[in-house]
Amino acid sequence: MIAEVLSIGTELLMGQTLNTNAQFLSRRLSALGITQHHQSTVGDNPKRLRQAYKTALSRADVVITSGGLGPTGDDITKQVLADLLNVPLEQNAEAFSHVESFFKTRGREMSENNLAQTLFTRDSIILPNPNGTAPGAIVPCDALFGGKAVIHLPGPPYELEPMFDSFVAPYLEKRSGQSLVSRYIRIFGMGESDVDMRLRDLMAYANPSLSPYCSLGETQLRATALCSSKDEGESMLAPLIESVKARLGDVIYAITDTDRGSLAETTLALLKDKRLTCCACESLTGGQFSSALVAVPGASDVFLGGLITYTDLQKQNLAGVRKDTLINHGAVSEACAKEMAQGALKLCNADIAVSLTGCAGPGSDSRGTPIGLVIIGIASKERSAAHVFHLSGSRSRILTLSTLNALNLLRLEALSIQ
Amino acid sequence: MIAEVLSIGTELLMGQTLNTNAQFLSRRLSALGITQHHQSTVGDNPKRLRQAYKTALSRADVVITSGGLGPTGDDITKQVLADLLNVPLEQNAEAFSHVESFFKTRGREMSENNLAQTLFTRDSIILPNPNGTAPGAIVPCDALFGGKAVIHLPGPPYELEPMFDSFVAPYLEKRSGQSLVSRYIRIFGMGESDVDMRLRDLMAYANPSLSPYCSLGETQLRATALCSSKDEGESMLAPLIESVKARLGDVIYAITDTDRGSLAETTLALLKDKRLTCCACESLTGGQFSSALVAVPGASDVFLGGLITYTDLQKQNLAGVRKDTLINHGAVSEACAKEMAQGALKLCNADIAVSLTGCAGPGSDSRGTPIGLVIIGIASKERSAAHVFHLSGSRSRILTLSTLNALNLLRLEALSIQ
Repeated sequence: MIAEVLSIGTELLMGQTLNTNAQFLSRRLSALGITQHHQSTVGDNPKRLRQAYKTALSRADVVITSGGLGPTGDDITKQVLADLLNVPLEQNAEAFSHVESFFKTRGREMSENNLAQTLFTRDSIILPNPNGTAPGAIVPCDALFGGKAVIHLPGPPYELEPMFDSFVAPYLEKRSGQSLVSRYIRIFGMGESDVDMRLRDLMAYANPSLSPYCSLGETQLRATALCSSKDEGESMLAPLIESVKARLGDVIYAITDTDRGSLAETTLALLKDKRLTCCACESLTGGQFSSALVAVPGASDVFLGGLITYTDLQKQNLAGVRKDTLINHGAVSEACAKEMAQGALKLCNADIAVSLTGCAGPGSDSRGTPIGLVIIGIASKERSAAHVFHLSGSRSRILTLSTLNALNLLRLEALSIQ
Repeated sequence: MIAEVLSIGTELLMGQTLNTNAQFLSRRLSALGITQHHQSTVGDNPKRLRQAYKTALSRADVVITSGGLGPTGDDITKQVLADLLNVPLEQNAEAFSHVESFFKTRGREMSENNLAQTLFTRDSIILPNPNGTAPGAIVPCDALFGGKAVIHLPGPPYELEPMFDSFVAPYLEKRSGQSLVSRYIRIFGMGESDVDMRLRDLMAYANPSLSPYCSLGETQLRATALCSSKDEGESMLAPLIESVKARLGDVIYAITDTDRGSLAETTLALLKDKRLTCCACESLTGGQFSSALVAVPGASDVFLGGLITYTDLQKQNLAGVRKDTLINHGAVSEACAKEMAQGALKLCNADIAVSLTGCAGPGSDSRGTPIGLVIIGIASKERSAAHVFHLSGSRSRILTLSTLNALNLLRLEALSIQ
């Protein structure tokens, strides 16, 4: 089955909005084993949208639109398709009660404009939208485009994403007649080429398949089984996942059912599970490591707090780093990183403390520390250690990679504590 | 002049890459007064790419491609266009010396593969790439598509963006025969609808034009003059910008020549200019405020460090918040926010301290603090104050809005210090 994502909205052509929907939908389609050959974007222009529908329906089995379901005159997504199919839009009772109840539960008045959001062609399948006023729809296009369909989704990602996962994915799975079971293997601390070398033979299989995705500092593998039942899929994946685990070891930080979830979440969950607390002392990253933990709901069960010691004086005054250490070794040294971690550990009375010091550029410091030299300290009641990294790229890349490496070291430290 | 962005790469259709290039190019084109009616994306498939070129060249004057200039067999962007134009790719001496020197300065060997990156059609204008191996090119398509052109840019954003700004923007400006001068008016603390209401009459003018862009917490206005010279443009913009300043006052935090730069940068520059130092005491945001400052190069001239007091105990032990305050008022209170700021101010010996406390959800705390209640404290040697905010949305949205509001309060405090 071939799908095509058609993004609708002049704000996309003006660059006012970043099209994250196209990526989200492409990832989901790919996970469902559905191919895309084209994506396109048009503005809120009836003539060009009509042509875009015709082109997309001529080359794809399913066209997924995002945007243009709002209540204003710009929102022409449904009307233009209805005109092309030569069928009228009519008030749909299910959609009406959805929009009505959306306003009612929020104690707001439904305006006349919103009536447009309840209009659909007669044979449309309505897709409920718990996060907004615009229902989506699956519009069969059988009469003119035999067997094909257009799926309308709302533009805001927090409306589109759950609507796709709840209603569109099951529909497409049924329609494509194939069942897929996927697992996401999340890896930190091993690059794509290294992963590729170790797993090349496993990646050569067509079913179950194993494909890598990369993001900054992380590699992710998606293992997918094309199967006739969920149980069959599970048993096809089990030996593949066992092999991957055996070959890669603890660079795998999580194996999940979806591609959501972060290294910070896994690390916090592990510490919580082991009833461990942590704290931080950050120079280099100035709070980015701590805020990555705090971004996860429930962080307060594990993360106590910490120090940001951006200057040498703060390292002494707040964290108790010895003046001698700073003079003899400098702030970017293993000795300083260890003392920073030990200082925070003691002040916060945590089980594990993490410290970060280094030079992120663009300039070097007064001691001529090389840009990208990063030292991460780890202290626990039993021991302390410092890990040296040589990172490259922009300031922002170095800061983010430092944060991720610190999260990973915290995870490994927690794993080692019985 | 009509342009069309054509993004090339199977990784886009698989959802492995987020297409930030399309947004960047659209914003730049829009700032140059160049219209886009369509954007499209195709994979690394010669037949479909050839068709995409034909379609785009039939409806746009300039087609801008991104991606597919690498050294591997997948990288077919130039070859497919050359085939369509029926002209050969030849080794280009300028491109060769560019690729050769890229490797030489990095002490690396140029591989045979990289020779593909030096091949262009004879009349191509080569665009240097200081950040990667792939030169870009402007390819005139006169013979078959009278007067039209394709511009090839590399896929990685850190290569594409400077190449566009340095070489493509001046080319397009010259080609379109129109000169534009723009200013970006950056606003924090006033929503788009409020800005719109106060400036509606100014926004009605066609030249100079004033158009709003929104992002989380911020509103940005782009003032653009279509003019025959830079000087004329400047003098057309001056009275418009004066009117906007007079009507909006100090919610305007910066007026810049480009759309780059952040509230954190402006705030740091202001403090540096006034020789003021700052520090932080974060509960709620757990380091996000401090790391927003540290993300800016040169932050160490202004930002000293601070405390992350995520638990009540840390608020007492690290920041010296009184136990009474926590018992009587709770951690999310004006009293606590002030004591947190005062504690950090004293410890770090800074001119201004900022504190953040609140509840970001998804759950409420044990005292039943409403989700979205955020209190920001500001302390200086002369005074201290607490500002109460009621924010809404996801945890991540509340944390980011809190950080931005704290940066803005720091900016306003610095403005008020003589």
